[in-house]
Amino acid sequence: MNTITLITDFGTRDWFVGTMKSVILGINAHAAIVDITHEIPPGDIRAGAFALAASYRFAPKGTVHVAVVDPGVGSARKPIAVRTAEYFFVGPDNGVLSWALQREKIRTIRVIKNERFCLQPRSRTFHGRDIFAPVAAHLSIGVPIQMLGPAATKTGIIRLPWPEPAKDKKVIRGEIVYIDKFGNAITNIAESDTAPEGTAGAEVVIGRKLKCAVAEFYGAVQLGEPVAVFGSSGLLEVAVNGGNAAAQFRLHVGQEVTLRLLR
Amino acid sequence: MNTITLITDFGTRDWFVGTMKSVILGINAHAAIVDITHEIPPGDIRAGAFALAASYRFAPKGTVHVAVVDPGVGSARKPIAVRTAEYFFVGPDNGVLSWALQREKIRTIRVIKNERFCLQPRSRTFHGRDIFAPVAAHLSIGVPIQMLGPAATKTGIIRLPWPEPAKDKKVIRGEIVYIDKFGNAITNIAESDTAPEGTAGAEVVIGRKLKCAVAEFYGAVQLGEPVAVFGSSGLLEVAVNGGNAAAQFRLHVGQEVTLRLLR
Amino acid sequence: MNTITLITDFGTRDWFVGTMKSVILGINAHAAIVDITHEIPPGDIRAGAFALAASYRFAPKGTVHVAVVDPGVGSARKPIAVRTAEYFFVGPDNGVLSWALQREKIRTIRVIKNERFCLQPRSRTFHGRDIFAPVAAHLSIGVPIQMLGPAATKTGIIRLPWPEPAKDKKVIRGEIVYIDKFGNAITNIAESDTAPEGTAGAEVVIGRKLKCAVAEFYGAVQLGEPVAVFGSSGLLEVAVNGGNAAAQFRLHVGQEVTLRLLR
Repeated sequence: MNTITLITDFGTRDWFVGTMKSVILGINAHAAIVDITHEIPPGDIRAGAFALAASYRFAPKGTVHVAVVDPGVGSARKPIAVRTAEYFFVGPDNGVLSWALQREKIRTIRVIKNERFCLQPRSRTFHGRDIFAPVAAHLSIGVPIQMLGPAATKTGIIRLPWPEPAKDKKVIRGEIVYIDKFGNAITNIAESDTAPEGTAGAEVVIGRKLKCAVAEFYGAVQLGEPVAVFGSSGLLEVAVNGGNAAAQFRLHVGQEVTLRLLR
Repeated sequence: MNTITLITDFGTRDWFVGTMKSVILGINAHAAIVDITHEIPPGDIRAGAFALAASYRFAPKGTVHVAVVDPGVGSARKPIAVRTAEYFFVGPDNGVLSWALQREKIRTIRVIKNERFCLQPRSRTFHGRDIFAPVAAHLSIGVPIQMLGPAATKTGIIRLPWPEPAKDKKVIRGEIVYIDKFGNAITNIAESDTAPEGTAGAEVVIGRKLKCAVAEFYGAVQLGEPVAVFGSSGLLEVAVNGGNAAAQFRLHVGQEVTLRLLR
Repeated sequence: MNTITLITDFGTRDWFVGTMKSVILGINAHAAIVDITHEIPPGDIRAGAFALAASYRFAPKGTVHVAVVDPGVGSARKPIAVRTAEYFFVGPDNGVLSWALQREKIRTIRVIKNERFCLQPRSRTFHGRDIFAPVAAHLSIGVPIQMLGPAATKTGIIRLPWPEPAKDKKVIRGEIVYIDKFGNAITNIAESDTAPEGTAGAEVVIGRKLKCAVAEFYGAVQLGEPVAVFGSSGLLEVAVNGGNAAAQFRLHVGQEVTLRLLR
C-alpha cells in the first residue's frame, strides 16, 4: 500500500477530486490517498508550492505527491514527474513543485508523454483526472519513472524564486509568504536565520501597528495580543493569541516583516 | 478491497459523513471510501444526480455508488439499490440515481426492506447512516443484492427527465445544467449533438451579453474573456479564462444556451 | 487495519490535517482514517466534545478516536490517551473527550509523556501532528497504552459539565447544545427524559416565537413550518421542514428549550 497525497485548487464542492481518487483506485486499489488541501486559491501557484513544501516531508518514504494548481491546463506547459531520494512528485511544470524540490535531492525529472499511463481519451481541461492521477497511481505500484517520457534537466523546469530574507547586522527583513485559516501570518524567516544571536529579547514589526515579541507558543501572551513564534513549518509566524492576526492587523502575503534581534 | 463513493448534501461541518464512513468500516474494514462531494445544495436532487452522472464511470468496476440527497427522509419514499452491468447504486428513490442509471445497463432494482442489512435501531432522520451506508458496505463485501428486498421495475422508480437539447438546422438550443465552483456553466449540449457540422467557427450565446467562440481549452482566449469548450464531462461548458463566468455574466442553472454552428 | 477518527478545528484550507494523516500512515500504513469533522469553530471545546460524543459509537470496536480542539496548545495542559471497554480516545486534557468518556467504561487514562511515540523534534504549536497523530497511530498498531506515560485518575482529568435538563411535573426545561449545518437546533433533552408520559400531544417552545409539536420526522409538517423530532443523536432537535430553523428563529447554543408533555 502506497501513499498518494493531493494538493489542488479544485475545491470539494464538485466531483473533481472524487474522480481523481476514483481513477487512482482503479489502478492501485490499495493506495492510501491523503488530501493535503483542495482549497488553494484558484490558480495561485505560490500558495500550492508553499502547501506542498510545508507538508510533503511528513509522508512515508516512497509517497507520491501530486500538486495540481494549473491555470495553464491544456496549453503548452508540460506535465512532469520527479523522483527524489525519498519521494515522487507529479504536477504541471509551472513552479508548483519547485519549493519542495529545492529541499530534496533530485534523481530524475521526466516529461510525461507516454499516453499508456494516462486516461484515454484525455480531456483538454482536466489533466488532474486524466494525466496526474493515473500517472501517480502507476508510480505508486512501481512503474519505473523512466517509462513516463523523456528526461528534463533541473534547469529545464520552471522554478519559483523563494524570497530569501535579508540580514543586515541584527535586523532581518523578510516577508509574509502564507496566511493560514487561523489568520496566522507565516513568514520566510527561518529559525536558522537568527543564529548566532537567537531571539531572546527580539522584536517583530509589521507595518505601523503590529509590534510584538518572539515567544515559545501562542499562549505566552494575553488573549487578543500579538505574538511571534517559530511555528510548525519551522518559519517565524505572527499570530494573535485566541484571535486572527491577519484580520486584526490587515496582513497580506508579500508584506514586509522586520525582525530585530537583541533589541 | 472495494470502492464505495459518497455523494450527499450533508456538508462536512458536522459529524454526519464521518458516521456514515464509521458504519461502513464496521462492516467492511477494507472499503476504500471516496468522497465525491458532500456540498450538494441541501435537497437539490438534480445537482446530486448530475454530480453522480458526471463522476461514477471513473470508478473501478464493482464500485458501490451512494447518493443521499434526500429531502423526503423518513416519509414514504423508498430506499433502493440497483445493480448495473458494472456498478452498484444505492440511494433514495427520488431521481437522484436516475441520470447515472439512464447511461447504464440495469440488471436489477431492489427496494431495501431487509432490516438485517441496516443499522438497528434506525433513526427517522438519518437514513444515510442507518440504511444507505450499511447497505453499501454489505454490497461491497458481496451480499447478493436480491437479499435486500423485493424487485422493482425500471418504470417503477422515479426518473428525472434529462433536458435534451433541440437542434433546428444549424442552431442547437440547450440550457445550463450545472455551475461548478470555478463559475464554469456546464450545458446539456454534448459534442455528438454538433455532428456532422462540427464546431469550427461556431458561436455560443447566452442572454444578451455573452457571446463567444468554441475553443479547445480555456487558455485559447485572452484572460478575462469568455470561451466555450467541451469540458471534462463531455458537455459544452462556458468559462471565462482566469475568471468566473457565472459571476461575470450572472448565469444560472436552467438558463437557455444557443450554439450556432458554422456561422 | 484499524480505524482512526479525527475531529479538529484545523479546517481543510491548509495542510494541517493532511500532515496528521501523513504522520499516521508513516506509522500504520494500513490505518483507515475517518474525518469526522475539521470545522469545529476555532477553540470551541464544547462543540468538539459534542461532535465526538455524537459520532464515536458508530465506529468499529478498537477504533482510536482523536479530538484536537486545543486552544492551550504548548501550555501546561496535558495530552492524554484513554482506553475504554471498546475504544481509545486521544486528545488534550481540556474536556474535549469528556462527553464521550462519561458514556463509556474507562479502563485506563494515561498522560502522554513518552517521546518515543511522538514526532521528533516536536513543535510547540502543532501537537495534532507531533503528539496526537503519532500516538493514535501507535495505539492502532497495538502499542500498549501503558507505555505512553503515567496513569491519571478519572477525577484527575478535566470534565465539562453536561447540561442536564430539569423536569418539573410535565414540563422539561433544557437548552440548545448544538446547531448543525441545516440549522437544526439539537437540545440536551433525550427521549428517555419524556418517560413515562411520552410525547403524544407534546409541545416545544423556544423564545417567544417558536412553538411546535413533536413529530416522527421533518416532513410531518408543511414546508417552512417548525417541527421537533428525536433526531439521529437520540436528542430532541428543532427543525424547519425544508428550511433553516436557526436562521428563521434566530436560535443559538445555550438558549432555553421548554418541552410541555401531554399539554
